[in-house]
Amino acid sequence: GRSQGLPWKSWYIKSTGSSTAVSQRKCLIYIVKSSFNSFFLLYTDAAGNYDVMNNVVIPTPGAPDPRAQNSLRQSWEMNYQEAAIYLQEGENNDKFFTHPRNANALSAYLFAHNHLFYVMELLTAVLLMLLSLSEAPAVPFLRLDVYVHASLELLALAMVAFELCMKLRWLGFHTFIRHKRTMVKACVLFIQFIEAIVVLVRQTSHLRVTRALRPIFLVDCRYCGAVRRNLRQIFQSLPPFIDILLLLLFFMVIFAILGFCLFSANTADPYFSTLENSIVSLFVLLTTANFPDVMMPAYSKNRWSCIFFIVYLSIELYFIMNLLLAVVFDTFNGVEKMKFKSLLLHKRSAIEHAFQLLVTRQVRPDGVCLKQFDGLMRFYRPRMTARDRFLTFKALNHSGATMLSLQDFYKFYEVIGLKWKARRIGEHWFDDLPRTAFLILKGLIFVTLIRFALVTEFYSLMIFYGVEVLLKITGLGPLTYFSSGWNLFDFSVTVFAFLGLIALAFDMEPFYFIVVLRPFQLLRLFKIKQRYRNVLDTMFELFPRMASLGLTLIIFYYSFAIVGMEFFADVVYPNCCNTSTVAESYRQINVTIGNQTVLKEGYYYLNNFNNILSSFVTLFELTVVNNWYITMEGVTSQTTHWSRLYFMTFYIVTMVVMTIIVAFILDAFVFRMNYSRKNREPLDDPEEVSQTEALQTLDMYKHTLGITNLSSLQDMCVALERSGHSSLVFLGRRSRTKSDLSMKMYEEEIQVGYKQGVPHDLYILPPSTRRPTELT
Amino acid sequence: GRSQGLPWKSWYIKSTGSSTAVSQRKCLIYIVKSSFNSFFLLYTDAAGNYDVMNNVVIPTPGAPDPRAQNSLRQSWEMNYQEAAIYLQEGENNDKFFTHPRNANALSAYLFAHNHLFYVMELLTAVLLMLLSLSEAPAVPFLRLDVYVHASLELLALAMVAFELCMKLRWLGFHTFIRHKRTMVKACVLFIQFIEAIVVLVRQTSHLRVTRALRPIFLVDCRYCGAVRRNLRQIFQSLPPFIDILLLLLFFMVIFAILGFCLFSANTADPYFSTLENSIVSLFVLLTTANFPDVMMPAYSKNRWSCIFFIVYLSIELYFIMNLLLAVVFDTFNGVEKMKFKSLLLHKRSAIEHAFQLLVTRQVRPDGVCLKQFDGLMRFYRPRMTARDRFLTFKALNHSGATMLSLQDFYKFYEVIGLKWKARRIGEHWFDDLPRTAFLILKGLIFVTLIRFALVTEFYSLMIFYGVEVLLKITGLGPLTYFSSGWNLFDFSVTVFAFLGLIALAFDMEPFYFIVVLRPFQLLRLFKIKQRYRNVLDTMFELFPRMASLGLTLIIFYYSFAIVGMEFFADVVYPNCCNTSTVAESYRQINVTIGNQTVLKEGYYYLNNFNNILSSFVTLFELTVVNNWYITMEGVTSQTTHWSRLYFMTFYIVTMVVMTIIVAFILDAFVFRMNYSRKNREPLDDPEEVSQTEALQTLDMYKHTLGITNLSSLQDMCVALERSGHSSLVFLGRRSRTKSDLSMKMYEEEIQVGYKQGVPHDLYILPPSTRRPTELT
Repeated sequence: GRSQGLPWKSWYIKSTGSSTAVSQRKCLIYIVKSSFNSFFLLYTDAAGNYDVMNNVVIPTPGAPDPRAQNSLRQSWEMNYQEAAIYLQEGENNDKFFTHPRNANALSAYLFAHNHLFYVMELLTAVLLMLLSLSEAPAVPFLRLDVYVHASLELLALAMVAFELCMKLRWLGFHTFIRHKRTMVKACVLFIQFIEAIVVLVRQTSHLRVTRALRPIFLVDCRYCGAVRRNLRQIFQSLPPFIDILLLLLFFMVIFAILGFCLFSANTADPYFSTLENSIVSLFVLLTTANFPDVMMPAYSKNRWSCIFFIVYLSIELYFIMNLLLAVVFDTFNGVEKMKFKSLLLHKRSAIEHAFQLLVTRQVRPDGVCLKQFDGLMRFYRPRMTARDRFLTFKALNHSGATMLSLQDFYKFYEVIGLKWKARRIGEHWFDDLPRTAFLILKGLIFVTLIRFALVTEFYSLMIFYGVEVLLKITGLGPLTYFSSGWNLFDFSVTVFAFLGLIALAFDMEPFYFIVVLRPFQLLRLFKIKQRYRNVLDTMFELFPRMASLGLTLIIFYYSFAIVGMEFFADVVYPNCCNTSTVAESYRQINVTIGNQTVLKEGYYYLNNFNNILSSFVTLFELTVVNNWYITMEGVTSQTTHWSRLYFMTFYIVTMVVMTIIVAFILDAFVFRMNYSRKNREPLDDPEEVSQTEALQTLDMYKHTLGITNLSSLQDMCVALERSGHSSLVFLGRRSRTKSDLSMKMYEEEIQVGYKQGVPHDLYILPPSTRRPTELT
Repeated sequence: GRSQGLPWKSWYIKSTGSSTAVSQRKCLIYIVKSSFNSFFLLYTDAAGNYDVMNNVVIPTPGAPDPRAQNSLRQSWEMNYQEAAIYLQEGENNDKFFTHPRNANALSAYLFAHNHLFYVMELLTAVLLMLLSLSEAPAVPFLRLDVYVHASLELLALAMVAFELCMKLRWLGFHTFIRHKRTMVKACVLFIQFIEAIVVLVRQTSHLRVTRALRPIFLVDCRYCGAVRRNLRQIFQSLPPFIDILLLLLFFMVIFAILGFCLFSANTADPYFSTLENSIVSLFVLLTTANFPDVMMPAYSKNRWSCIFFIVYLSIELYFIMNLLLAVVFDTFNGVEKMKFKSLLLHKRSAIEHAFQLLVTRQVRPDGVCLKQFDGLMRFYRPRMTARDRFLTFKALNHSGATMLSLQDFYKFYEVIGLKWKARRIGEHWFDDLPRTAFLILKGLIFVTLIRFALVTEFYSLMIFYGVEVLLKITGLGPLTYFSSGWNLFDFSVTVFAFLGLIALAFDMEPFYFIVVLRPFQLLRLFKIKQRYRNVLDTMFELFPRMASLGLTLIIFYYSFAIVGMEFFADVVYPNCCNTSTVAESYRQINVTIGNQTVLKEGYYYLNNFNNILSSFVTLFELTVVNNWYITMEGVTSQTTHWSRLYFMTFYIVTMVVMTIIVAFILDAFVFRMNYSRKNREPLDDPEEVSQTEALQTLDMYKHTLGITNLSSLQDMCVALERSGHSSLVFLGRRSRTKSDLSMKMYEEEIQVGYKQGVPHDLYILPPSTRRPTELT
């Protein structure tokens, strides 16, 4: 693919009318290069002792033609932009064959790759999904007329179609029809369009099971990459899962036959009366939902019959189900590891591509200097201040050489996330206190807290915490304050307590329950004990990943809810299901005991599929598994026996997803516990900036790069001057993510991957096909 | 401790009347040594080229005094025995400070360390535990008179006391009273004794909760070492477990208060009517057993109240419970790893002790030669044949040097388990078939099998499999045949199928259900698919460990069953518990519908503690968790509210144990899956024995060692001669155990442990205090 080169670039250069002769350009390059080099060689020679003398371009014979210089600048800008696009592709896991190759593609790419577009994509998908709240069977207070929701749907679908067109423009027709996910999306879109028009024409909804496919629009969103990855991993875990599931079902069937032979003679035993009942009973027993009831009729006849059930549960529930867990866990982890590795290699090759575009070729060894890096960053992170760009460059440049080597540049994605902040001396008054004294002080506060937390006189404490929160917010600024999980925790605890206080003070009856939230104050105790701190730290770290898993579950819920609504809406109601064994649970009768009449309710008619919210609650109940067969039997008795397939499928699907969630939490916590035992230092990257260095940088930005918005750098210089110290330390900080954990977890495999580098060699440009030197 | 030396040895030497002067002895030692050395140097010089010439003691000036030689021989025998004891201690994880130090201790040690004693120990403990079948409340058909079972108990306790005395004799009073487990056992024994006498005197049982402590006698058995280790690990996992449990309970209490505030106004909601009810409801909800019923009254009033339950379940069930799992898993694994490491180091130091006792000192470098090794093995494994002793020596001696170095000797415990078998050429006629042809043949058989398995005409297949099993048993011998998990599997499947066939043929009505076991034939399909093979292989490997975990669970069951029987025997019966919310489940009434009278049964009165078997079934039902609160509420309504503590404690205890079992299975399978992906070769150790080597060994055994029972070696020589080959390969084989897996799993840590060697340095004899040379 790379042999085609990057046609859009040559087009761009042509269109800007660059026609300078090669010889001239070469000369020019030499001059600019040498001046750059001399500057940068001086610039990072050794910390502190710089010479500003060489900072301006030395006038050389054959002064640069302004047009040629302009064209060169434009070429560089092009390179910066393309490098930024490569880095973005690396971050987003976009394959490089979708790299924009012509002007149309570039503008389409830029159009389809910004947050505005992403948000629009997301909102459209969410709107489409939310429509099911208003479509029949609708949630009562959100019901909309058919023509309203059908029009809304058409609008949303049109938006999706527009987005798809933009994508087509960017990818080109050839790539577009080969991209499976996009093609499926297009088909679904087409069907939905037709259906929406049919609904609009008929003015009534028909059986629209295809609405269950709506989540595909959400899944395809840029922001839902994690969900996409989860889904892929779940589907990849299926083959071994199915193997073990077959084993499970095989044993189930054998035991069902055996149970039928043993217990069908007992007329008091409805669970094994027919072979179908026998299989259903044992399937439900697999979920333990009908235990011990399923055993009781047989057990009351012969006490030894309990052996049948104990053996069945031991084999199926305690052995094979755990095996299932183990197999899913193993495959999911294997896939996760592989995916992580390939993502990492993809990022590395993106970095290599970008590096090729940024190197200053005349200097050996090849490297990227601050000017190029700054140019890249202006495209990659337009909002980043000049100071942060400079500090990021310093953080990457650990070797202390003039330029960034490829090895330095490999750390790009790790360093880019750092948030820079000057380390002030004595930030809080209590920072100077000895650590133990501080802990004792806090401990005393907690003791007081516990004594007073549940009695009324805890106003003073509340004020103490309120003041603490306010001080911290003003001190750190709201953004910094709320970016820490611990601060958020503190904040919400305090706010809850305050709300409780207000409710109590103003005697607001309906919000009275908030008072009860006061004991949440005790959650502060978490911060004292190391284990709890670890637990919560891990929780904060894993939150994004858990949220994506939760979203994945909700997507499954949504699809099942739609199917459930289409087939089972309004089938259960009070006093229905009299032919089933669970009629009792649906009964609603007035019972007269003595002279009192009491309404006896079975309540299970509430677990229905009458609208999407009810369906979600019902599906949650099915997920919790307990008594799920009552819902299943109720619906089955009102419809057909095939309805059981829906419930059983749902059980198996949620089992897989829940298994993965459990396995994931388990794995992450166990790893984190081991990890935190070994590495305790936070993810801080301190960079020292001396006064001279700061001034030089400011100067260079002003004169050489010609950038005007330099307030951040000027602020830095001023801060340096005011502090009276010769240098200032900046701390780069970011929260640890699952990816950092994974990096440590798979360290060994990753190193092997780098060495083998199979997928990564595919992308690397051979040295001969590097960018033409005229562009550098 | 080692500075005291080994007094019993000097006593032994004295008592056998050895009074030879030191000078004489030294001379003698020199002669014997040199002759030994010359022999052994020749013997294992290089494979094949031996010289038998030097095999007899060379007559040297000052011919050996027969008495001195006798004494020397006795000294060596003493060394062999002590080395064997060290190795046994290493195997059993007996600490070396319990090493027998005098004649009494030695005879007590030998008395208390043989399988007869172990079996007696086990039988006594099992008898004591089984007594609860016959004690009131007894299983009806096993009821015994008070004086019978009390006498039996006294007898068993006397046996335990006798065993304890033997242990006292071996350990010495000082060590004895410092050994915690033994002291606890002694106390329990004392109490049980008094209680048994009281029962015998009063001729009636009193409230004997202390019977719940009976499993301690079982746990203390030599054969139950694994159970002991499990229990220790469970107790060591408790502190972090309790931390997270507190978190769980804290949230539970907060939600209980909140729930009480929100829902107690609803008179139709019995679950939150009081604060106690609220807490109990949420505890039961933690187990999901009352979901969604607990939500229904509130949900029917206000649909948004489901949020309370969804949030509660998400936090408690899906997050904190998994955290609990993770923490227990982590700690259990950590403890397991540490224990494994310390066991390994203990074994190493045992090997070092034994090595010191076996080295032939005059030769450099120090080593153990075949004679000494053979002497050791005669004590360590008296039943081992001379051939196997020789092959074990060869397997250890991988360096091919004259003697075993300490490095060779470190592998002792791994090599000792190998079962030796000559590799025959063409063992089965089908071994010569190409592997694929063989698989195709088997596949064809399976296809036929599936076609015919469920129809009647599968006699021919049965005959085929029957013949296969018979051939294999006769070919391999029953012992070898049944030592393989796969063969056992084949055998049981075939036997089941045959039983079904017989039941069908002779129309035996009561055993008719065995016919249904015929589909188990399909289990043979397992052998085809690699994943199923892995699953079953892992199962066979892990079976001992899983059995020990199961036994641990049964021990908990036993204690809880005793307590349950003492407090709750006969409290539930049909139509009891009318004051509780679960009265329905205990009802047994005749209902007349139309002109039919049907007995409507709630059956739950069957879940009682009326005898130990019923208690076990009830506890199993509580373990499965579903509907456990019906049993709890029934018992509570008939006794006091404090009864709930029993059920809640049981829930938490089984949760811990089941968590560990699940975690263990999960861990083992995941590891095994990874492991089997990397290492596929079986655990075979081939040793080649040439004809000359075999003859020389036979000769040496006959003349030098003076051992008479050499049939195994003679057989080997005959086999060699008959085969016509110049050498014969013997295969040492053993099944892979969890310990092999662990060894691989913790390889890195173990290497670090060896290097640090902290606990192991404590045991090593410093070179200066090595055995006196006169003994070697």
